[in-house]
Amino acid sequence: WIQVEEDGVEKLQRHFSFRNFEQALAFTNQIGQLAEREGHHPAILTEYGKVTVTWWTHKINGLHRNDFICAAKTDALLDQ
Amino acid sequence: WIQVEEDGVEKLQRHFSFRNFEQALAFTNQIGQLAEREGHHPAILTEYGKVTVTWWTHKINGLHRNDFICAAKTDALLDQ
Repeated sequence: WIQVEEDGVEKLQRHFSFRNFEQALAFTNQIGQLAEREGHHPAILTEYGKVTVTWWTHKINGLHRNDFICAAKTDALLDQ
Repeated sequence: WIQVEEDGVEKLQRHFSFRNFEQALAFTNQIGQLAEREGHHPAILTEYGKVTVTWWTHKINGLHRNDFICAAKTDALLDQ
């Protein structure tokens, strides 16, 4: 994960690589389920063979401890 | 749809609004099915209540007639 700044807001971002679009979209859906469980929703960019996930907390316009936890949980999805 | 330029590449982009994350993700999946049918894959940014779709053709680093057709087919998904 890298810390990026978008429009003055600090965010956590990571790219994940996949073999094709279908597998990328499947991971997007796994993240969607995680987001609903957590009640916290990232931005997910789905492309052919690639998913870019960005976590931050709108309410504080930046990073909360929970964003780092959700980033770790995103990584853990890959081990399932 | 608006025409945007990213890194010197012309692309077609549109934002779609939804009530929540779940509905946004459902639309992302509809677009994913369209993409597989067409054998042409956009970038889909899924956020809480919002989906941003971007079509362009990698092979020509720009816009092909097919991108405009896929944009129209994306719109048509909403009427289903």
